[in-house]
This record gives sequence, structure tokens and C-alpha cells, in this order.
Amino acid sequence: MNIKTASNLDEIFFPRNVAIIGATTQVAYPLALLGGKMRDHTFMVNPNYKEVLGKKAYASIMDIEEPVDYVILTLPARYAAQAARECVQKGVKVIHSFTSGFSETGLKEGIEREKELISILKGKVRLIGPNCMGVYCPKSGLSFNPASTHEEGHIGVISQSGTFAQFFIHAGHPRNVKISKIVSYGNAADLDCPDFLEYMADDPDTRVIALYIEGITNGKRLQSALEYAAGKKPVIALKGGVTDQGGRVASSHTGALAGTGETWATMFKQAGVVQVEDFDDLLNAAVALNESPLPAGKGVSIITYSGGFSVVQTDMCIKAGLEVPKFSAKAVEELRKFVPVSGTMVGNPLDAWQLFYKYDDKGGTLKDIFRIIAGEKDVHSIILQFDVIRFMLNMWSDTFEEYFEAVVQKVLQGCHYAHESGKVVFVSMFLDPFAENEIERKYNLIFKKRLENEGFPVYPTLNDAVRTVGSLYKFTEMRQRKVLKTG
Amino acid sequence: MNIKTASNLDEIFFPRNVAIIGATTQVAYPLALLGGKMRDHTFMVNPNYKEVLGKKAYASIMDIEEPVDYVILTLPARYAAQAARECVQKGVKVIHSFTSGFSETGLKEGIEREKELISILKGKVRLIGPNCMGVYCPKSGLSFNPASTHEEGHIGVISQSGTFAQFFIHAGHPRNVKISKIVSYGNAADLDCPDFLEYMADDPDTRVIALYIEGITNGKRLQSALEYAAGKKPVIALKGGVTDQGGRVASSHTGALAGTGETWATMFKQAGVVQVEDFDDLLNAAVALNESPLPAGKGVSIITYSGGFSVVQTDMCIKAGLEVPKFSAKAVEELRKFVPVSGTMVGNPLDAWQLFYKYDDKGGTLKDIFRIIAGEKDVHSIILQFDVIRFMLNMWSDTFEEYFEAVVQKVLQGCHYAHESGKVVFVSMFLDPFAENEIERKYNLIFKKRLENEGFPVYPTLNDAVRTVGSLYKFTEMRQRKVLKTG
Repeated sequence: MNIKTASNLDEIFFPRNVAIIGATTQVAYPLALLGGKMRDHTFMVNPNYKEVLGKKAYASIMDIEEPVDYVILTLPARYAAQAARECVQKGVKVIHSFTSGFSETGLKEGIEREKELISILKGKVRLIGPNCMGVYCPKSGLSFNPASTHEEGHIGVISQSGTFAQFFIHAGHPRNVKISKIVSYGNAADLDCPDFLEYMADDPDTRVIALYIEGITNGKRLQSALEYAAGKKPVIALKGGVTDQGGRVASSHTGALAGTGETWATMFKQAGVVQVEDFDDLLNAAVALNESPLPAGKGVSIITYSGGFSVVQTDMCIKAGLEVPKFSAKAVEELRKFVPVSGTMVGNPLDAWQLFYKYDDKGGTLKDIFRIIAGEKDVHSIILQFDVIRFMLNMWSDTFEEYFEAVVQKVLQGCHYAHESGKVVFVSMFLDPFAENEIERKYNLIFKKRLENEGFPVYPTLNDAVRTVGSLYKFTEMRQRKVLKTG
Repeated sequence: MNIKTASNLDEIFFPRNVAIIGATTQVAYPLALLGGKMRDHTFMVNPNYKEVLGKKAYASIMDIEEPVDYVILTLPARYAAQAARECVQKGVKVIHSFTSGFSETGLKEGIEREKELISILKGKVRLIGPNCMGVYCPKSGLSFNPASTHEEGHIGVISQSGTFAQFFIHAGHPRNVKISKIVSYGNAADLDCPDFLEYMADDPDTRVIALYIEGITNGKRLQSALEYAAGKKPVIALKGGVTDQGGRVASSHTGALAGTGETWATMFKQAGVVQVEDFDDLLNAAVALNESPLPAGKGVSIITYSGGFSVVQTDMCIKAGLEVPKFSAKAVEELRKFVPVSGTMVGNPLDAWQLFYKYDDKGGTLKDIFRIIAGEKDVHSIILQFDVIRFMLNMWSDTFEEYFEAVVQKVLQGCHYAHESGKVVFVSMFLDPFAENEIERKYNLIFKKRLENEGFPVYPTLNDAVRTVGSLYKFTEMRQRKVLKTG
């Protein structure tokens, strides 16, 4: 289905300048904007200050000498209407209202305020929010987080929740989430999820769209926007409020009518959108979709150092809709040539812990394992569980740096080989968030960056990697069904 | 059901001394034993060395001047039978065979070797394994991990997988897992899961039993041991190989007959054992059962700084069999007195982010929130999602230390109050394993330890905390059913 998109929102993501009404050092926006490309195009507006963070503070937006494209409202809700009127007068194009205290309160006063705001702006100024974080766009310099990176990426995020928008930045950064644009849109009194979906669908900087949504007023419009976007690039969605009690909470969060979990699941499925259950899954899948091709099928192979993980994670693969196929007799024969019999499992998963420590060039290394498994036609994704750096540090001590580097090279060569053979390649490495061994942390982070720099996603647990292959395979499955249907 | 336990395994967990046959610096045991209480009671046996780690190496166990209680076999499988014969002759009580290459290989040679080993030892020397890590017992000094803590705790672990036994130590330590005993028992050619279950059931040092199992030869015996143990203390179990493919992998891991997932689920349920799905759940539940009372019912309240998490984690609570009840009108009224209207949700979950930053004594702090929620009769567990330290660091900079300490005090007072009111209290604090902000890490770890030191379990994500309340509530539910049945 190819509908024409109505949403050219360039002025929202790429304004020429920004005015922060209610600017103080107590809100994040002044610092966030002065830290990036908007530095010289940001105006502070606050009648109570002469300056904010060294920038002149204007008493009113009307005092700014030039036209203003984009306004961030951070003042108390009772002043919002007056500020909005001035914005209309000033010819502002977009208002983002961080200010909350509107329909989401469920109180009459808040609902009335939102109606008033809309009636002031309607047809003149577009509105993001109210009650939201607004826009992060490293390419233009818009940001709501002073600690955010300015690196430009290709993951687009549309989030009804401000926290999850924030999380994509601060939890996303260490997970290699590289963002094109984030929009947190809160109560959606004017601009709503479908507008942003259509825009990001057409946005050449966005390769993947990650969506967090709680509810919608116009279901048909959303369905069509989801279809449109999913027809152009992968869309992965987390629906908040799939249970009755969750739905009740959603309605007091963003005033959203949540609908039933089944209705939403059906809508996502029909639109070709993959639904996940958890924020971690959303983040992990977004990274994978950005970095990796889709698996050609449901067959997974796990290269591990542990029998216990082999068993439990095979169960997890099955629960995620995947398969852990047996290796061919030929592959088993080849593997048996160099995998020791004792303490290993020559099969899929492959538990060959000794080979993680093979640093010499005599063969029988992780590189050879990748080569053999990459030749298996029923295997479409390969996951390497590389939780062994702490053991290497103990075992090698003085020679660690040298041997470690040699193993890293073998892993990289193996990953590239498998990747060139058309396999999806993921790596997991366990690092407890609360662990305090700094040397272990250091080398785990080094290994992780080496892998990521060459395009291989790294996950903190094997379970994360397995679930992410599961999410990716759902896209493959949908595409296969579509080909069957139209073919 | 009160059967007499046949398993007094004190000699296994508390030997007077240990001999490591095949001792080298390439295996972990010499270092692990010399690092703890067994230091002066460990003998190295290896004809190829004069000494190992500064300790005299004996050519054979027969050369040791005194009787030997406990032997660790770490030599290649082909020498195991001869070593076993010498152990019988020496009057050894227990052999733990780390050595693998037996029935788990699925090869005729390995199966024959295991039979031979058993026929040599039968009725004379008890056997742990082969193909396992053996015993960790900080009270006696037995250990398989040189990096393990010597702190004594009350969690007993029975694991068919060596990795998970190891994981309970190195992933367990940062998660506050305090161990009484771990036994990794591999192929279970002699001593099997039921033996260890019965022993730990009667062990006064063990309050909680965490079990990882792949298969069993005598199902009836296991059922009765599970019932016996679950009648004495909480038993939490992860079954590896609940799917067909997982079962296939299990059988090549430990030679176990896995059985169907349903059979196992029924057996656990009948025995009063709570089954979990994942290793993280097992570890998290073990900590909670050790530290916390069981919740009186399924009602959960979440204190959070985020509307998005409120919605998604309410869904997670429902999926975990819990409920997120509405607050009473009285509680809402009380909360409204100090929770700002704007950007919050005065309900359950309670999203009142501003109150996380209240450090003064003018009221309306997290302490007051705990007090009000603790008064709600439908709430049985309270989870505080404290992911806000990074924001505090930004917001307070120079005054951070002082304000942070004041907030910590308020949280602790609130937690104690709720705990004294009979509520289960958990805290979650997000710290990405790959995050590199060391200051944020430092204060998160400080906060975590402050909470843990006063008996409140801390989890790295809200989802972990929710799932753990879910595991605990399953025990409550089973006990309530039992009371109904027998009452």
C-alpha cells in the first residue's frame, strides 16, 4: 500500500533556531542545546533572569530580534496559553511543550488547558506534546539531554514515553544505539504517532524505526501509517498497556485509550510491524536491524563454552520461535578433528571451551569453527557466547595482552567469514552491571568495541542475543509470507 | 510427607583433607584450595612435578603419609580407573571427578569407562560426577574457583551444570548471593540430585535451595526428595531441556534423559517447588528467598520516576501472575498533598519523580511515600525504581554528596517502615553493564550496598525485581493452597 505521506516535518527536526520559554538552569534544555550544533541559534526567554548559562535572557519571545522557528515551553502550565498566543503572533512554526499539567492529569482543569492550547495554535503553529521530552536530532542539534552524544546514526525512535526516549540515549549509548532522530510526543494533542511514522518512513537518514506507544485516538490513521512505514523499512514496536491494568495506567500516563492487547497485536501483524515485549528487546532489536541483515531462516547455531547454557538457551531459542538444527555429519566430522572429546559437545550448540583459548596458528581455533558452521545450510544465524575474558586473565596473566589480541583476530576473521557466507553474526559477553572487577570490565569493553567497529552487534547476555535473533526472524517470516501471498 | 533422609553427606562437604590427583597450575583446584581454609590440608599429587604452587607434589596418593578423605581427579580420563583403585586402597571416602570423557560423550569408550569407574568404587568410595566442578563450601574451604569469596551464607546450590555452579559464584557475588554450599554433580554416576537435595534440606546452614537440573534416572526418588526438601525450605528450580531440542542437547551434555517439559512442571508443582525459566530468575529468586519474607499476596506497588516504566511494568506484573491494585481513596488523598500534579501519576504505580530529589525534612519525601503505601492492605510488595543517580549528579554537582546522603537516609527509613508493616521491599537500579561513566557506577554501587546491608535486595532492572516478586508469590500461593487443603 503506497499512500502519499502528508507529514513533511522537516521544520520540526531541522529548525533554524530555538527559543526556550521559561529557560532556567533547572531544566535540561538550555544545557542540552548549548552543547551541540544549536549553540549559536538558541534563545533563552525568562523575564526573571538577565542571562541563562551566559546567554542573554529575553523577557518575552516578542523581544527576540529575528523570526523564531521552534519554541520549547518549559514554564508552568498556567502560563502556557499566554506563551502560545505570543508564539502565534511571532510566527513560530513549532512548539514543543515539555510543560505538563494537561489532559494527562485526568483533571478538568488540565483537560480544559489542553483544549485552550490547541484552539490558540490550530492551523498556525504545530504542537509536539504537551507533557513530553520533544526532539533529539544530532544532525540539527536539537536535544533534551545534556549528556547525549552528537554522533549521527540511523535509528529513528518514536516514543510516547519521555523516559524511554531518554533511555534510548543513555542506555542506548553503551549498547551502540546510533540515533537519527528521537521524538517523545506525550499527550499527542496535535502531532501524533502517525505523523512521525510517515516522516521517518520517508527520512533517508533513518533505516529502522523503534516505536513505543500507549494509545491512539485515530486507529485507522495509525494502521495506515504503520503499513506505510513498514513497507519502507523495519518497524519494531513495544505497546505499553497490553493488559487491563497496564491499560488503566497508560490512560493516566498519556491520557491514551489503550485498547486490548489482542487488537494491537493484530494491527501490528497486519501492518508488518514486529512487536516486542520489553524495552530491552526494543533496544536490542533496533541495534540489530541497523547493523545486521535479516536471517534467511530460523536456524541458529550457538558457539559456547558451557553445556548448561547450551541446554537452557536451546530452550530459549525454541520459545523465541527459532530452531537449533543438528549439524550435518560432514560438519561434525570436521569439528571432531580438532575439538577435544572431553568436556565438550560436538553438536549444536557447540560447547568447545578449550578452543576459546587457542591463540596460535596451528588451526582448530574459533576462526575454524565459524568457517565450518558457516557452511551449514540449515544454520542462518550464529551466536558466539564470549564470556571467557575473566578466565583468560587468570590463565595467561603476563602473556594475556598478546594472546588476547591473537584470539580477537581469530574471532573477527571468523565473524567476517560467516557474515560473508550470508549468516547473521551476533556476539554475547556477560558483564554483570554490579561487578567491580575493573580489569575484567576494561578488556570486555575493548573486545566489545572491536566487534562493534566491524559491524557485529554485541549483547550483554546470551539470552539477549537469542531473543534478538527471534525478533529479526519475525521480519524474515513476514517477508516470506508476503512473497508467498503476492508471488 | 516426612521420609527419613538417607543422605548424610557431611564427609563430602566437610572432609578433613583433600588430595588433588593430577594437580597442575593449569587447573583451578590447587589455587582455589590453597586460597582458603583447606590451605594446610591439601595434598598435590602428580608424578611429573616436584611441587605445585610451592606445595610438595606426591607421585601417588599412596605416598601420602596420612589418611585422605577427599580426592579431586583432574587427570585425563584414561588414567581415572587406576587412580580410583588407589583411592579404594587408600581408604578415601569421596572422589570428585572433574575429569570428563565418560558417558556424556555418548561414545562407547566413555560409557564403558564410567561403568568401570563405578564398579571399582561401588560400596567403598562415594563419587561426585564425573564431568563436573564438584563442591564449593566456604565453611570447610572446598572450592573450584580461585576467585571465590570465603564469606559464608545460606543459599545452597545444586547444579548439574558446571557453568551455572561457577556463575553462582562470579555473577552471584555482585548480586549479593551468599552461599552455604554449591555442588556441581555432572553425570551423576553415583551421587545424584536427590542425595544432595535431602542433605541440603537437613542442613542448618542452608535456608534456600536453588536447583539446576537436566535429567534424572530415578524419577520417583527425585520426586520424593523434592517433596522432602520443599517441606523444609524454599526450593527454586530451573529445568534445562524443557523443549524437544533442548532435551536433545541436555542428553549430550550430561547424558541425562530429559523427559517432557510438562512432566517436569507437574513434578515440581506437586512437590511444592517453584520453577523458573532462566538462570537470572534462579539467581534473583535465591537472593530474595534468602533475604526477604514471602509476600502475603499478589498486590505490588511500584514507586517510580517514569510513566513509561509504570505502564510496561504493570503489564509485566500481570504476566508474572501479580496484580497492581488501585490505591484507596485515602492514600490518593494523602499523596496528593505533596505529589505535584504536573508530570506525575498519583496512583499505582506511583510516578512522582520530583520526590526522589527531596532531601530536606519538610516532608513529602520518599520516606512519606513508603509510609502511605505501606498502609494499603491490597499492597503486599513494594518496589522502588531508583534509576536517578545520574540525574542527581547533574542536578546537584557540588552539593551532591550531602543531598545524596540525605535521600539515602529517607529511602532506608521508608524501606524499614514498609518492611516492619509486613511488606516485601525490593529496589531496582539501572546500571548498564557496558556503561562507562565511572562516577555514576560508583554511587550506584554505594547505594546498592547501603540497601543490601540493611537486608533489602537490589536488582539491576525493574523487570528483574518484578519477576522476582512473581517467583516469591508462587511460594505464597502454594502455601495458601496447602493450608486450604489441610486446614
